[in-house]
Amino acid sequence: MDAAPDTDAIIIGAGPAGLFAAFQLGLFGFQSAMIDTLAGAGGQCRALYADKPVFDVPGFPRIDAGEFVERLLIQVEPFTPVFLFNRKAVSIRRDGSRGLTVTTSGDEELRSKVVIIAAGGGAFRAGVAAPNNLALDAMPFQSWSLPAVDGAIPVDSATFLTGVPGIFAIGDACDYPGKVRLIVSGCHEAALMAQAVRKMLRPGGRAPLYASTSPTLRRRLGVEE
Amino acid sequence: MDAAPDTDAIIIGAGPAGLFAAFQLGLFGFQSAMIDTLAGAGGQCRALYADKPVFDVPGFPRIDAGEFVERLLIQVEPFTPVFLFNRKAVSIRRDGSRGLTVTTSGDEELRSKVVIIAAGGGAFRAGVAAPNNLALDAMPFQSWSLPAVDGAIPVDSATFLTGVPGIFAIGDACDYPGKVRLIVSGCHEAALMAQAVRKMLRPGGRAPLYASTSPTLRRRLGVEE
Repeated sequence: MDAAPDTDAIIIGAGPAGLFAAFQLGLFGFQSAMIDTLAGAGGQCRALYADKPVFDVPGFPRIDAGEFVERLLIQVEPFTPVFLFNRKAVSIRRDGSRGLTVTTSGDEELRSKVVIIAAGGGAFRAGVAAPNNLALDAMPFQSWSLPAVDGAIPVDSATFLTGVPGIFAIGDACDYPGKVRLIVSGCHEAALMAQAVRKMLRPGGRAPLYASTSPTLRRRLGVEE
Repeated sequence: MDAAPDTDAIIIGAGPAGLFAAFQLGLFGFQSAMIDTLAGAGGQCRALYADKPVFDVPGFPRIDAGEFVERLLIQVEPFTPVFLFNRKAVSIRRDGSRGLTVTTSGDEELRSKVVIIAAGGGAFRAGVAAPNNLALDAMPFQSWSLPAVDGAIPVDSATFLTGVPGIFAIGDACDYPGKVRLIVSGCHEAALMAQAVRKMLRPGGRAPLYASTSPTLRRRLGVEE
């Protein structure tokens, strides 16, 4: 198998929640690699309704899902996530103190400190007819030793940790009391997950929250003035 | 005192969380009235950093806080919330089965089925110097019989209900495990609160979730095609 460079976080699923997760992790100085079965970023927004308008993303009275994904890609750009498209994550295993290793259908092994499952595919389960070129396999939660209920993984809604240490779930992949499958919720979940990852990987470290006022965050974003 | 027309929801605080709450409640067919101490909508985004850029709202790599508020105002427009500016909410009382009555410093009494507290003012507590024309009083949580810890009200993060039936809290006004004071979180909280209000006021009713696919939601939004 190919050796792959270590990264802080492996994000499985490059839809809106996954992209915003890479952004939030980037704000805290963490590098992400993203794995997706599709040929590009966007998840359901790309595969099922790229040219369909969405009306309930805050600040966008109406936006095509595909355009929203493009804007998220621009937003995450300063943090240069590594994208691995046309691949499935086929296994996750723990390597002692070295962290987690994800094996892809592209025969790569990626090592990381944390894994974030952001591949929901709820729309597929809801019976939406999908183009032939989509990989419709459900996420192999069982082979990852993750308990899934109705296709979603129960998480702690304070941290978005699954029952497995180091493995988080956000977006349509996760479930918790009150969960609603909205883009805004997936992004909120990404933000709280990133806080939990920061506390886990950098305990006791300083934690600026707002790029508006933090020179550190602005530097990471590449904002000059 | 003036009599005021009944409304479904009274939202105290017209910042981003409050505005998105009026939007989400509107999607479910509920009418909102909004009370704010300031002379216009936007909360902290208006009062403290209207011309400051924000970098962490999903889909906006960089946006001035004031412009984001303008976009939220356009988004909520189809649901025609009633704005009551330059007023404080001075009391909330329960009128038996008639719901809740909020009294304002403008000597109005507003009756509603639910009250949503979306007035955080966290920045004030953080010691930011504020212009002289701002009402800096802390929210009178105590006189409303709401327990506040460190200036925020503990809520159930599945429903955003406070300990008092019919009274919800979102945005910087609320606290729950994992809470981070982000715009995206305030909007997520607004969305889940609206679900809980719908279940409370219209139990057993149908619940379309996505305006992209629901004719009912599109009609309410005034979307033609």
